[in-house]
Amino acid sequence: MKDTLVASQIPRGFRFSATACALKRAGQLDLGLIVSDTPAVAAAVFTTNCVQAAPVQLSRGHLRRATSRMRAIAVNAGNANCCTGADGLGAAQSTAAAVARLLECRPEEILVCSTGVIGVPLPVHRILAALPRLVQSQASGVHKFKRLSRAIMTTDTRPKWAAATYTVGRRTVRLLGCAKGAGMIAPNMATLLGFIVTDAAIAPPLLQRALREAVVASFNRITVDGETSTNDTVAVLANGASGARPINAVGGHYQKFLSALAGVCQRLALSIVADGEGAQRVIEIEVLGAPSVQAAERVARAIAHSPLVKTACAGADPNWGRIMAAAGHSGVHFNPARAKITLAGIEVFNGKPLPFDERSAHRKLSAPGISIIMDLRSGKQRATLWTCDFTAKYVDINASYRS
Amino acid sequence: MKDTLVASQIPRGFRFSATACALKRAGQLDLGLIVSDTPAVAAAVFTTNCVQAAPVQLSRGHLRRATSRMRAIAVNAGNANCCTGADGLGAAQSTAAAVARLLECRPEEILVCSTGVIGVPLPVHRILAALPRLVQSQASGVHKFKRLSRAIMTTDTRPKWAAATYTVGRRTVRLLGCAKGAGMIAPNMATLLGFIVTDAAIAPPLLQRALREAVVASFNRITVDGETSTNDTVAVLANGASGARPINAVGGHYQKFLSALAGVCQRLALSIVADGEGAQRVIEIEVLGAPSVQAAERVARAIAHSPLVKTACAGADPNWGRIMAAAGHSGVHFNPARAKITLAGIEVFNGKPLPFDERSAHRKLSAPGISIIMDLRSGKQRATLWTCDFTAKYVDINASYRS
Repeated sequence: MKDTLVASQIPRGFRFSATACALKRAGQLDLGLIVSDTPAVAAAVFTTNCVQAAPVQLSRGHLRRATSRMRAIAVNAGNANCCTGADGLGAAQSTAAAVARLLECRPEEILVCSTGVIGVPLPVHRILAALPRLVQSQASGVHKFKRLSRAIMTTDTRPKWAAATYTVGRRTVRLLGCAKGAGMIAPNMATLLGFIVTDAAIAPPLLQRALREAVVASFNRITVDGETSTNDTVAVLANGASGARPINAVGGHYQKFLSALAGVCQRLALSIVADGEGAQRVIEIEVLGAPSVQAAERVARAIAHSPLVKTACAGADPNWGRIMAAAGHSGVHFNPARAKITLAGIEVFNGKPLPFDERSAHRKLSAPGISIIMDLRSGKQRATLWTCDFTAKYVDINASYRS
Repeated sequence: MKDTLVASQIPRGFRFSATACALKRAGQLDLGLIVSDTPAVAAAVFTTNCVQAAPVQLSRGHLRRATSRMRAIAVNAGNANCCTGADGLGAAQSTAAAVARLLECRPEEILVCSTGVIGVPLPVHRILAALPRLVQSQASGVHKFKRLSRAIMTTDTRPKWAAATYTVGRRTVRLLGCAKGAGMIAPNMATLLGFIVTDAAIAPPLLQRALREAVVASFNRITVDGETSTNDTVAVLANGASGARPINAVGGHYQKFLSALAGVCQRLALSIVADGEGAQRVIEIEVLGAPSVQAAERVARAIAHSPLVKTACAGADPNWGRIMAAAGHSGVHFNPARAKITLAGIEVFNGKPLPFDERSAHRKLSAPGISIIMDLRSGKQRATLWTCDFTAKYVDINASYRS
């Protein structure tokens, strides 16, 4: 993570904490807590997978309640608490209840999140035993936030965070987010785990609306392996501690907030792709000239999910025929004789194959970030998606994930 | 290929030939020919990818003509002749014309097929120069057929064929097929390259009907990497040389023929999965208790295309949570709390996780063929799909395919 983080970027009125409770290997941080000093307006988006983890079911329910104000998010890594039956739901409930007792609030004011292996009973007693020291050690500093960002990691190789500030009147509003995710990444409506806190004051429906808008162009436009997880959750807490005037309508202030939130979401989303399991490079796929945004996205997704395109990128091979083949089986109809493909800045196809220098193409494709632009010339809409290449290391990581 | 092939299995009235014309590396067989002594009833299914190779466009056109009788199939490997513009179509046309001249028939009686890299101009002069010796060396023996089976290979590690015979009255009817394919395999309506010849006599619409029926349960139910190719073609030639009475209606004789054809298609399809790029094992995925066959197939396909399920199989890891997650994002709604998963004969989930012996499960999953059965308990329909595991070798093969 190149971004340095300084104390002035931390939204006011939030505290963070992390500890190890033996859900991962001994001594590794695996339990985290985000606490707002006062009840915060909350918004969240969740996985659309029809198999939903117990903490997703519980948190959804808590957010549906009238007030939608939240005090804290409790999160564990190392176990997804998914497909764990009634015991799993009980484990998520008792986590929320225990945190609420320690923070002296109601269980409904707690969001619970889990990530890790699916289908293994959650040893919740370890979490319950660790919660008192987790709550006790909460603090507002950079150090604590970074520990939290590490605690939520699974196959991630590095913690991921992003911050933004803007001013309104004489007040500074701060946003800060962290996220985890490297495999089982193909968000749709929601994604992975992402937590964003802000000291903005904003009306609940506007926060939910801003989050949806921000997620559509960030987390929902990345994919590592086409696998929509059972535990995807992005949550925002806004506690108003900045003292800036509240956002009560869609206007200039809302737009400032949305733009900051969208920026944080996009940087978090891109950092997930860059840390994709086994990834060497980020691939930006832009589809132009589509009959609709949906069609553009569908073609971009077919290219982004193509193991043949992704392995060619791993080998820095300008094998554009695979891009064409993937677009062709996307389900979107277009005329290949009118299409155009630009690969790492080189126009390789324009109705017919164009000659290009293989060596120079190979060199350009060896960069840490590469671009694929496909113009269908069948309309005026476009969509951009981000993915990563597909290496033998992805296979190694996932052939032995549980062992 | 364990199946031995003997002369008596070769359908009467067909000849085969193969040669090297430098589309692959020097000296490798890359051009093949199947000739029927008399015009044969033909049926074919082609790729549904909206990007279709020149030979697919040409052969489709030839089959649309009134008579649908064909004399020969000319096939090259090493170049797909796809996305090659007007020159590509010209190359396919001149191939058909040259073969027709040599066989003294019309160009419309020739099917042309290509497989290999997409988007590279086909050096058709090499094919045209080789055609006279290809036609000259045609013969009906086992040896020639095996050479043909090798000539159509690309990343295949072994040739694939399957034969069947049945008797009707005192006559023996023979069916013999060969196929190629190891990557870019996710047939839908049609698939890869497969050629089947038979000396049955059958009315054209019945042959097409039998082929569709056979393909639905074989080639259309396999997947290696979810990539529907631009060149997929399965063609059948039936020349009636067996002397058996013609099949002119759907009845007992048609059923015999269909069952033999379906058997040949299924064995060819399974041999493609077994030779999937980098594959160590074949995975049979059976989805039961679905509300419709389409839903069952959709769930099976989501599991079969899941890189996480496929890498877990590569590691012989009984990580059934990934099967549940893949089924959950298939788009088919079911209640996970009622579902049941049996992995390599071990019931691992039945509404909740079931305890099992990890070591024994790992041993069972290390077999060359493994079974995944998922019962959704949401209906009475089922579907079976075959795929292979996903190893680092797949990545290695495809990161350097063109180099």
